[in-house]
Amino acid sequence: MTSTVLVFLDPAHPDGRIEDASRPQLFATDLGATRGDGVFETLLVMDGHVRKLPAHLRRLASSARLLELEVPEHEAWERAVVTALDEYQRTVGPLQEVVVKLVATRGVEGAHAATCWVAASAPAPAAKRQREEGVDVVLLDRGYDSDLGERAPWLLLGAKTLSYAVNMAALRYAHAHGADDVIFTSSDGKVLEGPTSTVLVAHAERAPGADDAGQVAFKRLVTPQLDSGILPGTSQGALFAAAKDAGWELGYGPLEPQDLFDADAVWLISSVRLLTPVNRIDGKPVGTDPELAKALTAELAALFDRIA
Amino acid sequence: MTSTVLVFLDPAHPDGRIEDASRPQLFATDLGATRGDGVFETLLVMDGHVRKLPAHLRRLASSARLLELEVPEHEAWERAVVTALDEYQRTVGPLQEVVVKLVATRGVEGAHAATCWVAASAPAPAAKRQREEGVDVVLLDRGYDSDLGERAPWLLLGAKTLSYAVNMAALRYAHAHGADDVIFTSSDGKVLEGPTSTVLVAHAERAPGADDAGQVAFKRLVTPQLDSGILPGTSQGALFAAAKDAGWELGYGPLEPQDLFDADAVWLISSVRLLTPVNRIDGKPVGTDPELAKALTAELAALFDRIA
Repeated sequence: MTSTVLVFLDPAHPDGRIEDASRPQLFATDLGATRGDGVFETLLVMDGHVRKLPAHLRRLASSARLLELEVPEHEAWERAVVTALDEYQRTVGPLQEVVVKLVATRGVEGAHAATCWVAASAPAPAAKRQREEGVDVVLLDRGYDSDLGERAPWLLLGAKTLSYAVNMAALRYAHAHGADDVIFTSSDGKVLEGPTSTVLVAHAERAPGADDAGQVAFKRLVTPQLDSGILPGTSQGALFAAAKDAGWELGYGPLEPQDLFDADAVWLISSVRLLTPVNRIDGKPVGTDPELAKALTAELAALFDRIA
Repeated sequence: MTSTVLVFLDPAHPDGRIEDASRPQLFATDLGATRGDGVFETLLVMDGHVRKLPAHLRRLASSARLLELEVPEHEAWERAVVTALDEYQRTVGPLQEVVVKLVATRGVEGAHAATCWVAASAPAPAAKRQREEGVDVVLLDRGYDSDLGERAPWLLLGAKTLSYAVNMAALRYAHAHGADDVIFTSSDGKVLEGPTSTVLVAHAERAPGADDAGQVAFKRLVTPQLDSGILPGTSQGALFAAAKDAGWELGYGPLEPQDLFDADAVWLISSVRLLTPVNRIDGKPVGTDPELAKALTAELAALFDRIA
């Protein structure tokens, strides 16, 4: 906890106001704490570079719009991130791998002003391990049908809100059932997303006569369609752009659970854990050609590493 | 804000630790603030008496169990409430009408101990006005079907969590559409609950030849069935017990929107706003006999006022 650097956005401090994260900094009447009423983003700094900051700021603004929450302009967040990383480097350590969280709550009850802060900290060790070893997931019903988001804006589907109790409960349920993570499905049987990640599916064919799994004749990357009420993945978006340039075909769902079992590889992708292979779904192994899957993971991970 | 009294539950302070609510008291890394991961209860103190405290403590414990969150025993909460009310009386004013909030979050990241507090403050003026004048509501789809709760425990239906962003968004949607409040419906068309209240429906017949609307031959009070994934209402439970003793027939859903329009009276009931008549639903007036409705409201409000 002492290794968290905290910078509040504050009109009186254009570059952000550094505060001590080892001391209380939020009011007990903040609607973020009492109602989960706010939005957030989590992003990764690698070797001093803040990955996909514009995409995260765009999504933060879009989430805030869905919640009718007024948040500071992008530049104020950018300056606070710089301040937080300077302070992190000064007081904690090098910026090799740092998790940066942007949070905006509806503020203290009655104050009508968002509480906004940037927190920088070291990533959890589990993230790196899961990225390297892959994860087992369970399919869990999210309870919504896949075209609900469009007709029910009050459900805030597509907004990254602070109300993550269900996402956390789903992860606990997975852990209690011997899995690491979750892929949510809709009540009409479509693949949605992970509690903290986007689902990616690959189909590939080895080049005729190839003995190297890396030589593929055809490779296609698919993700559930955005209008199914899922969060638009900043990582998925960035990787899709890079994969297209690298010759991948791209596709957008609808996907059904059987499509996951029929795939050559399945991943969960997110900003901090990055591209994480899914080894098993509901106990069943994913893919039929482990070498091909490994080659696809290596190719996409390399593409994703290079994105800005 | 200065009129909020704050008491933290703290093993080192058996009666609770009084803190200054006008200063920050929560860590920015508290999972209540960053994940809406926690549970709460809101209850009312009237003329010095804490209403339905045991029922609220039971529901807090039940919510915490659904979240696998360890919270202090009832006695610790009771002592903290006493401390908060003593302090409120000393520093703010008499205990004529005071809102008491009990909050338990999953605590600071990595600390593995719940953050628990009691907050006492004056009720919002809107609560009293709405209770007296009634509210207009809109029906909004909650997106879940009514038997989902039973088969998907990870969705935390029936737990009163801090993840209330959707409830708040639904209320904003209602306000933007000229209404005061919301009644959620399930995707299979059943009446569920309000974002912060339980739905009650009455059917009554005036006694033959009666010219006083208060003289009814038959009166029946119905609420949606609990297994539809709604929150078990402490107020509904208490009022049902009192109404039964007063000769009302009781019923539990399923209710459909048409049942609301066919009713003689509809209310939203909750711990702070108490029994609040619903005047209009989606713009259509509720009930056909305003005098009868008024008599039923008066009878139930009097019953509800007297409960402990």
